[in-house]
Amino acid sequence: MAVLEPANERVVGYLGPRGTYSEEVALKLYQLETGRLFFMPYTSIDAVIRSVEKGEVSECIVPVENSLEGSVNVTLDDLAHEVELFITREIVLSIRNNLLVKPGTQKIDVIVSHAQALAQCRHYLTTHYPDAEIKIMDSTASAAYLVASGAKNHAAVGSARAGQIYNLAVQAADIQDNPNNSTRFIVLKKDADADVFPANRKTSIVCRINGQHPGSLCNVLLEFAQRQVNLTKIESRPARTGLGEYVFFFDMQGSLNDANVRAAVDAVKSKSLWFKNLGSYPLYAI
Amino acid sequence: MAVLEPANERVVGYLGPRGTYSEEVALKLYQLETGRLFFMPYTSIDAVIRSVEKGEVSECIVPVENSLEGSVNVTLDDLAHEVELFITREIVLSIRNNLLVKPGTQKIDVIVSHAQALAQCRHYLTTHYPDAEIKIMDSTASAAYLVASGAKNHAAVGSARAGQIYNLAVQAADIQDNPNNSTRFIVLKKDADADVFPANRKTSIVCRINGQHPGSLCNVLLEFAQRQVNLTKIESRPARTGLGEYVFFFDMQGSLNDANVRAAVDAVKSKSLWFKNLGSYPLYAI
Repeated sequence: MAVLEPANERVVGYLGPRGTYSEEVALKLYQLETGRLFFMPYTSIDAVIRSVEKGEVSECIVPVENSLEGSVNVTLDDLAHEVELFITREIVLSIRNNLLVKPGTQKIDVIVSHAQALAQCRHYLTTHYPDAEIKIMDSTASAAYLVASGAKNHAAVGSARAGQIYNLAVQAADIQDNPNNSTRFIVLKKDADADVFPANRKTSIVCRINGQHPGSLCNVLLEFAQRQVNLTKIESRPARTGLGEYVFFFDMQGSLNDANVRAAVDAVKSKSLWFKNLGSYPLYAI
Repeated sequence: MAVLEPANERVVGYLGPRGTYSEEVALKLYQLETGRLFFMPYTSIDAVIRSVEKGEVSECIVPVENSLEGSVNVTLDDLAHEVELFITREIVLSIRNNLLVKPGTQKIDVIVSHAQALAQCRHYLTTHYPDAEIKIMDSTASAAYLVASGAKNHAAVGSARAGQIYNLAVQAADIQDNPNNSTRFIVLKKDADADVFPANRKTSIVCRINGQHPGSLCNVLLEFAQRQVNLTKIESRPARTGLGEYVFFFDMQGSLNDANVRAAVDAVKSKSLWFKNLGSYPLYAI
């Protein structure tokens, strides 16, 4: 099933169907790229990530963190345990949720969307539609599709773009409870990109620290602090070896081409039972 | 809707319906308790937790972490942002998933369960039932109920107890991919219990650390390390104030009645922009 790429042909995997936030990021990120470009939708984040490992696509875009709901666990767990891929881009997208209905809808009995989008609008929905049934779907876009296909008295929570694609009316705009709602997406490839423009980069690693005694994480953090390497995120996930055993994800400012970042990462690697470099990559806000 | 409790009457909220792992923990934990005891099922973890805050129940049992799938985010986020409750017990349950069918079933076309249970058995299910459709439900117990009500060619992933309650046959036992599969549950109350037996206790706090500069988390960790307080878990969750801003949950061995734990927690509190004591509590393994 591997898709071979001629020199300038690239295939980008993303979480479909049409109208997801992932598709919005993919279209914006690649709009200035040259060469032949194809976008391939998959039905789950896990399937998107594995499509790169299998060679079905040259790269993929997946969400990794939302400012309200936290990390996307399947993305972190796949990166740690299931695949050998590098992060080559980070993109931050402001999330604006809308209540979408079929034009002419008088009454809303059922509200459908992805679990995260519903969670992001919980206070709005329970205040304005206390009696509506809330139903979880695979994606904001499949929710919009369901409403467009004629489900009676249904509304979907999704992007304005999903509304346009599926010919839905915006019953209410910007219904997220908290204005600080943005999602970080990452591009994953089999090989790290050449570090041509090292400014404004981040580096991500994941490791299992040697030792459960007091201060073992602290010793690792000191390797960063002593070298003035700024950590932007620390996240623990199960090591899958037993309750209370974890791997730690560290995101830091700077590239592995920076001497202090390289020295800190090498020191952490030497203190780890298990270690993975997830790559250095530039940041985009769209 | 508040349920008033006579002196020895207690009502315990849990994630229903009958046959969930939460119910199993509730029944085992309270089997030696005296006094009149009632168990009240709720349909979501959020509803269970809020039932204590509202006074509908005297206490509740909710899952907080699985050894494979990680933290239960709604539990952590509610504790940090939505309610003012204390942890009074911790219970670890070994999770054993089974494939449950209506007796006489010849063919399995659809497999239903809670998302975490399905994830825990993913390799088993894709190997043995590559063509079956996988459907996510609210709980392992509601999946068992669906199969029991006669959904054709369906199987549920759930506990042996759920199988007994709903008169289902165990088609395959212990189908979890990883034997290190256990879940931590906590009991929540409005007030902390008196610390009668201070041995074998843990203490949990959540705080927002002052400062984004390199080493601010490290400075906090040093307060524990210098006093030989052993951290059993560190978890970051969104502070809900913007991408890249977090609250940290710290679990540690010992009680706030221990001088070194108290001193470390006081020092961390003084370095925090925001701080919450979630209580000191004994541990049970069942």
